[in-house]
Amino acid sequence: MRTLIIISHPTMEESLNQQFFKEASSGLSVTWHHLESSYPDGKIDVKAELQLLAQHDRIIFQFPFYWYSSPAHLKIWQDNVLEQAAHVLEGKELGIVLTTGVAEKEYQAGGKEEYTISEFLRPYQRIANKFHMTYLPPFVLAQFMYLSQEKRWEKLIAYQQYLSLEGKPSLTQRIDWFIQRVQGNQKMQEEDSEKQTYIIEALTDAKEQIEDLTFTLQEMKGTSL
Amino acid sequence: MRTLIIISHPTMEESLNQQFFKEASSGLSVTWHHLESSYPDGKIDVKAELQLLAQHDRIIFQFPFYWYSSPAHLKIWQDNVLEQAAHVLEGKELGIVLTTGVAEKEYQAGGKEEYTISEFLRPYQRIANKFHMTYLPPFVLAQFMYLSQEKRWEKLIAYQQYLSLEGKPSLTQRIDWFIQRVQGNQKMQEEDSEKQTYIIEALTDAKEQIEDLTFTLQEMKGTSL
Repeated sequence: MRTLIIISHPTMEESLNQQFFKEASSGLSVTWHHLESSYPDGKIDVKAELQLLAQHDRIIFQFPFYWYSSPAHLKIWQDNVLEQAAHVLEGKELGIVLTTGVAEKEYQAGGKEEYTISEFLRPYQRIANKFHMTYLPPFVLAQFMYLSQEKRWEKLIAYQQYLSLEGKPSLTQRIDWFIQRVQGNQKMQEEDSEKQTYIIEALTDAKEQIEDLTFTLQEMKGTSL
Repeated sequence: MRTLIIISHPTMEESLNQQFFKEASSGLSVTWHHLESSYPDGKIDVKAELQLLAQHDRIIFQFPFYWYSSPAHLKIWQDNVLEQAAHVLEGKELGIVLTTGVAEKEYQAGGKEEYTISEFLRPYQRIANKFHMTYLPPFVLAQFMYLSQEKRWEKLIAYQQYLSLEGKPSLTQRIDWFIQRVQGNQKMQEEDSEKQTYIIEALTDAKEQIEDLTFTLQEMKGTSL
C-alpha cells in the first residue's frame, strides 16, 4: 500500500509535532508532500497533484487545527484539485492526521471546545463519501509537549500503523505488524537479540490468547442461537 | 446597527447570487468587503481588517459552499486576522450567508449531502462562541437559478432583514420593519399611493392580530398556572 501524506503547515520546520511525524514515517513506504513549501505562492499544479493522487492508495491530510479546520493552504489545494479528482480518488482511503494544543477531552458537549472532532471534520468525511472513499477514523495528536516519553512511543507506533496498515485493522493485525517490525529491526538484532526474542514471544502469546478468546466467544454465540 | 459583509468568492462579478445580494443590500447601512478583490495575492492587511471589524456591530461571512466550507480566501483571512481579533469581536454578532447549488433538503441524514448545514458550519459557530459573539442562524440561498420571481422577492426581503434587523427578530418586528420600508419608499408614494396604503393597512392589521393572539395565549397560560 502506498500512502500520500499531504501536509499543510505554514511553519512546518519549527513544528515539534511535524518533526515527530516525519521521523516516525521514515522507513515506511510513504510520500511526504508539504503544500506550503511546494507552492509558497498558492499556485497549485493541478496536473501534478492528480498524478500524485493516482500513484497512491491512501491519502492523508495532515495539519494542525487552525480555527477548527485545516490551514488555508490545504483549502487552496482542495478548491483547485478536488473538482477534477473524482476518477483518481474513487475507492481509495482518506485519513486525517490532526494536531491540537488542546486536550482531546475538551472536544465534546460541555467541554471547552463544545463540539467533537468528528463534527468539526464533517466536511472531510463528506468529501470522502462523495468520492466513494473509505474515511478512516482521524488520528489525533493532542498536546504533544505534555506527553510522557512512553505515551510518545505509543503515539509513534499508532501513527506508523495509521500510515501503513491496510484497512481498519484488528488488534491481532496490529500485533502482527509490530512483530514484523521488531523482527526487521537490524540494529536491535545485533545489540539486543535476547530482548527482541522476548518481545516477539510475549506479543505472539498475547496474539494467540486473543485469537483463542475470540474463537471461544464465537462458539458460545453459536450455541446460544 | 452597522453591518460588515465579508464576501469570499473567486469570481464574484459572474455570480448571480452575489449580484442579487449586492442589489438587495444597496440602500442599507452595510459595508461590502470582497476579499478576493481587496487581496488578490492573499496578503491580508491585518491592521485594516481589525479596524473594519471594530467599526461594525454585525459581522457576516458571505460565500458559496466550496467543499462544505468557505472558499480558501476566507480561510486565509481567518488564519491571519482572528488571532488578534478577540478584543474587537467580543459581544458582536456573527452571521453566515451561504449559497449552494444543491437543494436545502439534501443537507440532512439520508439526504444526498448527508449532514446538516449546521453541522458543516460548526467551525464558524465555535468561533462565534469562542469570541463571546452571538451566532445568528445561517441565511441559506439554495438553487437561486430555479427560484420563482415570487420566491426571489421573499429571499430578497429576508436577506435585507438578515443584514439590518437587530438581534433575532420576532415576526411582529419583521412586519414593523416591512411597514417602515414601504412607508419610506418614495417611488411608490408618487406612483401608487393607494396600493401602498392598502399594504400598510393589511400589515398593520396582521400585526395587531398577532399581538392580540399572543396576549390571549399568555393570559390563558397565566390562568392555568
